Amino acid sequence: MHKSRLAGFIIDCRSDDLEAAARFWSEALGLALRPSAAPEDEQYRLLATADDQPHLEVQRVQHESRVHLDIEADDIEAEVARLEKLGARRVGPVRSWYVMEAPTGQRFCVVRPQRADFAARANRWNSG
Amino acid sequence: MHKSRLAGFIIDCRSDDLEAAARFWSEALGLALRPSAAPEDEQYRLLATADDQPHLEVQRVQHESRVHLDIEADDIEAEVARLEKLGARRVGPVRSWYVMEAPTGQRFCVVRPQRADFAARANRWNSG
Repeated sequence: MHKSRLAGFIIDCRSDDLEAAARFWSEALGLALRPSAAPEDEQYRLLATADDQPHLEVQRVQHESRVHLDIEADDIEAEVARLEKLGARRVGPVRSWYVMEAPTGQRFCVVRPQRADFAARANRWNSG
Repeated sequence: MHKSRLAGFIIDCRSDDLEAAARFWSEALGLALRPSAAPEDEQYRLLATADDQPHLEVQRVQHESRVHLDIEADDIEAEVARLEKLGARRVGPVRSWYVMEAPTGQRFCVVRPQRADFAARANRWNSG
């Protein structure tokens, strides 16, 4: 048995100026910027959403600008296998997460649990 | 004075088979499908999110597949003008909403209030 659910959304911005991109989205959505928890995440800026809401981050990227979603899971490999059975394609692992592509073409990531209420509120799946 | 906030996300799918696309995202995210409120919205399928969470819809589109966000506002024109001052570009009106493009290139929509707690929880802006 493993668990997963929608974790949040990443606003991928192809821009050299991450601060300006983050400031636009912060003001557009009326959400304050807050420091990233991880100092190695210099390409991310977090938008301050409430604890019970999907997380929202602005990311500096090299590819085209887009928005992608993250699925949080307590067993990345089991979740990737589950999604593959549903028709998603494995793109590959990155650091602690795994990039996938939906049958309809959108890229998305399977990430470790992000929010405190994950264990209580995530979906339960019988693996295998 | 007007109000706005993040309303939710639309998963735009370039596919002739909206049911299959909606089924994939429903199973991937562990969110049930529910009927659209509006019979004219045959290109949409709603994912059942809790009332206090951003809405989530799967849409059949002709353009490339992507994910876009919606901002809900009680005064569409005032919100479009506010976002334009922040650097967004007007794309144009569609039915009851307005399509815009962020400085970083993502398309997004300004829509009418979607959720019951909009008045209590949206951001307040002094127009003009």
